[in-house]
Formats: sequence, C-alpha cells, structure tokens
Amino acid sequence: MAFKFEIIHRSSESRARLGKIHTPHGCVETPAFIPVGTQATVKSVTPEELCELGAEIILANTYHLYLRPGHDVIEKLGGLHRFMHWDRPILTDSGGYQIFSLSKLREISDEGVTFQSHIDGSRHLLTPEKAIEIQETLGSDIMMCLDECTPYPASRTESKRSLELTIGWAKRCKENFNSQGSALFGIVQGGMFEEPRAYAVESLTNIGFDGYALGGLSVGEPKELMLSVAAFTLPLLPESLPTYVMGVGQPEDLVELVSFGADMFDCVIPTRNARNGQLFVQNGVLNICNAHYKADQEPVEAGCPCYTCKHYSRAYLRHLFMAKELLAYRLNTIHNISFFMRLMREIREAISQGRFSLFKRDFYAQRSC
Amino acid sequence: MAFKFEIIHRSSESRARLGKIHTPHGCVETPAFIPVGTQATVKSVTPEELCELGAEIILANTYHLYLRPGHDVIEKLGGLHRFMHWDRPILTDSGGYQIFSLSKLREISDEGVTFQSHIDGSRHLLTPEKAIEIQETLGSDIMMCLDECTPYPASRTESKRSLELTIGWAKRCKENFNSQGSALFGIVQGGMFEEPRAYAVESLTNIGFDGYALGGLSVGEPKELMLSVAAFTLPLLPESLPTYVMGVGQPEDLVELVSFGADMFDCVIPTRNARNGQLFVQNGVLNICNAHYKADQEPVEAGCPCYTCKHYSRAYLRHLFMAKELLAYRLNTIHNISFFMRLMREIREAISQGRFSLFKRDFYAQRSC
Repeated sequence: MAFKFEIIHRSSESRARLGKIHTPHGCVETPAFIPVGTQATVKSVTPEELCELGAEIILANTYHLYLRPGHDVIEKLGGLHRFMHWDRPILTDSGGYQIFSLSKLREISDEGVTFQSHIDGSRHLLTPEKAIEIQETLGSDIMMCLDECTPYPASRTESKRSLELTIGWAKRCKENFNSQGSALFGIVQGGMFEEPRAYAVESLTNIGFDGYALGGLSVGEPKELMLSVAAFTLPLLPESLPTYVMGVGQPEDLVELVSFGADMFDCVIPTRNARNGQLFVQNGVLNICNAHYKADQEPVEAGCPCYTCKHYSRAYLRHLFMAKELLAYRLNTIHNISFFMRLMREIREAISQGRFSLFKRDFYAQRSC
Repeated sequence: MAFKFEIIHRSSESRARLGKIHTPHGCVETPAFIPVGTQATVKSVTPEELCELGAEIILANTYHLYLRPGHDVIEKLGGLHRFMHWDRPILTDSGGYQIFSLSKLREISDEGVTFQSHIDGSRHLLTPEKAIEIQETLGSDIMMCLDECTPYPASRTESKRSLELTIGWAKRCKENFNSQGSALFGIVQGGMFEEPRAYAVESLTNIGFDGYALGGLSVGEPKELMLSVAAFTLPLLPESLPTYVMGVGQPEDLVELVSFGADMFDCVIPTRNARNGQLFVQNGVLNICNAHYKADQEPVEAGCPCYTCKHYSRAYLRHLFMAKELLAYRLNTIHNISFFMRLMREIREAISQGRFSLFKRDFYAQRSC
C-alpha cells in the first residue's frame, strides 16, 4: 500500500492525536517510537524479538549503510528489508546527522558535503540527489531529506545560513524523489530561534513533503529550550501530515511532545542505555551495576511482561553485566525496548479514550516517586 | 531422578555406544556434546535457544561462579538452575583447570591451591572439600573432582607427581560428596604417558566414582598424541559408567573419540569460534570475514535448519561481523551450536542403526572435500 497518514482520533485537551501511517510494508500506529537499527540491526536483538516487543517500524542509517556494506550490495541482496530479515516499515535517516557527528574533514558546499569515512578514511561526496538515490536503492518506506544539522550553540545568523543550505537541499531531494509508494519527509532546522524555524516550515511546506521532521533538537541544548522550540514549531506544520521529532528522547520528552502534536520519535536512548546497564522503570532508571542488586531476586520491574522480567532476576542481570557477558546487552535491550513500546501503547490508549491529560499527570507523578 | 547411566545400544564395529544419562534435572542422550556456559550463560544465547538447538546439558564453571557472583549469592537466589533460567542438567567443572590457566600466583600444596583472582587480585584457597561444597551449593547435577591439569609438555616424573596430587584430592572429594541424586566424576590425569594414565584409572576406580573424565588433553599436544592417549585410556575405564573427554574438541575429534568409547564432551570451540567468525560447515570451516562473502546471498550452509541459516545470508552475517554488531556473535553462535548438536544426533542415529563405521567414513570423506 502507498504511503498515507490517517488521523484516527484527536485529543480535545491538547494537540495529541492518534494516527495510522500506511506504508508499502504495513502500518504503524502513532504516536510511535522508532527503535534505531543504525547498521541494519537493532543492536543485539532479532527482528522476531522486535515484533514480539511491538515494534512496528525501525530506523536504519543511510550514512552507515552507504559506507558498509554499501547500498549496491544491499540492492543485490534484494533490498534492506530482505537483507536484515525485517518485513515491516523502515525509515531511513539521510546521513546528514552522522556526517556531522562521525566523519572527519567535512567540506560543505551548495553541491553537497564531502567527508572522510570514519571506518577507513576514504573520501566521499554526499549530495541531496545521492542521499535520495541511496535511500531508494535500500528500499526505504520513509526517506529523509539530506540536511545540515545546525549545532548548538549557533547564533541566529549561523542558524539561518545553515538553514538555507538545508532548504536548497530539500528542494533537490524532492525533485529527485520517485515515490513508488514510499514517502519523503522534509526536515525543519533553524536552530533554537523561532523566526528561522517558522521560515523553515514555510519553505518546506511550499516544496511539499509527505511528512515533516524537527531536526537539530537534543544536540546539547537545555531540555526546556528543546521543548519550547518544539512547542513553537509543531503547530506550524500541516495538521493532516505526520510530524516526527528526530533523536528524542527520554520517556518524559515523548509524553510532552505528544501533547504538542508529535507523531513519531526515534532515539538511541533505550538501546544505548541498555548496553550501559541503565534500565527504564516506571519511576525512573535502575542502574543494574549498583551493588545493591547483587542478590536481588526481583525482576527489573514487577509486572513488566517482557522476556527479561519474566525469567531473570536483577541479581542475574547484574552478574551478566559485571561479567561483560553478551547476554547482558540483549536482555537489557529487550527490557528497555519493551518499556518504550508499552509507554507508546499507553499513550495511544489514553488518547483514544480521551484521557491523555490525566495520563500525563499520572505519568509525571510516578516519575517523581 | 537420581543419577544413572543406561547403555541403550553397543556398536558391534567399535567401542561406540548409545546411552542415556539420568539426572535430577532430566535426561541426556549420549554421545553428548556439552555447550560451555562458563559464567552461568552460554555466551550470547538464551536457554530457550539452547533447548531449541537440542542442547540437553550445559557446563558451568566453579572457579568463575565462586569468584563472581559467588556461590553463596547463587544459593540465595535458588541455585544455579533458577539463577540462569535453565532447568535441564548442568555439569560443573571443578575450577582446577581455570586456576591453572587464568589466575596468578598459584601456590599448590597437598591441602589445595592458593590463587589470586583474575578479576580483582584477591587471594583464595580452593581445596577439594571446598570445590565439592561450591558445586553442591550451586546445585550441580554432575560435579567434577578438583584436579591439577598436567601441562604439556611434562616429563613422566612430573606427570606422575602431579597425578598423585590429583588422586589424593579425588579421594577427599569423594569423602565430602553428599550425592542427593547428583553425580561425582573422577578426572584421569597422567600426562601423555600410558603407565601414569593406567595408574590413574586404577586409583580412581578404587575410590569409585559415578563416571570418569579424561583431563589434561587438548593442552597443546599434537592431535595424534591426544587421540592415542584417549584410545589407550578409555578402554581401561569401567564399561558400565559414562566416560567424558574434557575440553575436546573439533568435529573430527568427537567422531574419533566416540569410536573409542567416549560418551561426553565439552569444548568452547563452537561458541568461541563463532565469536571469531569461524562457522562450521560439513566440509570444514567458513571464515565469515572473507571478502568473498560480501554479496553472497546463500546461507552459511544450504539445508542447515538453524535460525541463522533459515533467515540470513552470508553477506548479512559478514556485514554484522565486520561492523562488530552484537547480533553477529549471537547468529554465529546459534549456527555453530546447531552444527555440533546435529553432528551428535547423527552420531547417535548411526550407532543406533548399526552403521557408525560407515558414518565415520562418510564424515571424513566430506571433511576432505
């Protein structure tokens, strides 16, 4: 089925809404959290486990897959879905963020960005056209325009200059995009300033995309600033199209941003923190390496239905983590993804039942326990 | 059920036999390969995956679990089976081998061995009595006597001196062992010499154990020497009790040793090699990092029924391995354990159908392809 966004229910108390994204590889209920599978794998877990946990879409990374194994290789193997044995929707990041955060010797011009691979130092030119070509070759369901992620801090002038590049690139992405049922999202940059953000929305909506993402958030700014930029920008976006806040975030960010009208999120937090022994629980985070858990026979969280909590004690998880056992990363990842998937399910249920404000209040009350 | 060894069928062409080991946690069909779960986990895989692969017993390590998390902690958590969520039989190594291979500052006396932890440098004394106490506390189904693993090379005199220590310790292990349904195995040392090996068998059988292991093999000696020591020693052991060749081995070793009358094996080869990208296939080993596999859409081995071969190409496995992705170690481990479990199943079928010699000939023919 071709890409389509359907709004199922609108909250009367906030901008929160329940939706459904249709893609060539199936549907995604929104608000949705997208687990990150950077290198064509969500670290340590299988596609079957992700399905079992309720993941309906994952994110893969253009920059990483272009460099290794190469999008041409993945194409030969039948596309990214078949390559990684995941038959549900895939959203691909354009590679812009990674070029700016991982690679060396970047030279940016209107044409695109020349960079050195973080793997072998080889030189590459990524243009908007190339970013689209790679994502189409991978067989992505939702593609992202190439953008320059404005760093923090950046002045208003720097933010606007960077934004002009992003807008020019977005136009070329759109021109080179050949849908075949998949979607192309524009990315709203503009730093931490309202006027460039509003200008970005206007420019991108004039070009016209299937959905809009907020980029350049969670790049080091205070959380209040992130939330205020999102609160300002989200209502400017076309109400009938999906909105996506990239690289965010903590559970409380998700709840807050949903109330501002955000439909999609991706973040490495559940998976990366799992590998660092940080386990999400209702009232915060449990650090599994704490000596306190050495002989603790309780699961990470009582009542959690995940495989990890069903079968293993905190003591066992601590043991695995302290012994640097591979199973530690996997069991922790399963629990954290489960936590995020359940949170999103609860958010969706609360919206559909007209009690999202109540849910939000209870959620904050629990977090502060 | 209490420990018992049942011989189901004897090969008429060799000393190979089909058997069944009964333990308090269920049965093990022999000849059996025992996956190694050193630190209360078979690296990267879950107990459910091990069951699915056909593993009926795993090995855990007394030295490691004594040091971390501590056998007292495991006891508080309901014993090793519950701690690690594995309800089938567990064999525990005594810790002797690890003290000699991993720890520092060993001081050996008749009393036992004083050593420094490889984790934090703390000093510990492991005596035969303590080794049994730890294994009983863990709730092991098959316990091993504390032994000194004679290094290679060692002279006849050194081998005999070391062996006397092992025999003295075996006696004390037996005296302190309180069965409760579980088994205690003696370990035959004696270096690479026939006379000390024969003496070890005589001394240990005089003490009387539930089964006998050959220790001190695969410690650096040529393969022919390992096989000749095993071929000499195995027929000296009580015919009605299970025999166990420790720390061996390669698929061809297993086939050969079964024909000498060996019933049990453990080895890190399938799991460790998996994590190094070495995948077992019928005619040898496939090194997944080979550039040859970069765009190879075939599974590791056509016809292999394992999860990895069912869903993933060599190209994907190579990609995961080159990118150092955690899923690489897991998918490789699943394939290698599957290979070893199927090999043992085929061996057992061949024995039961009176065609083990034929099987062995075909097996070698395939390996040399």
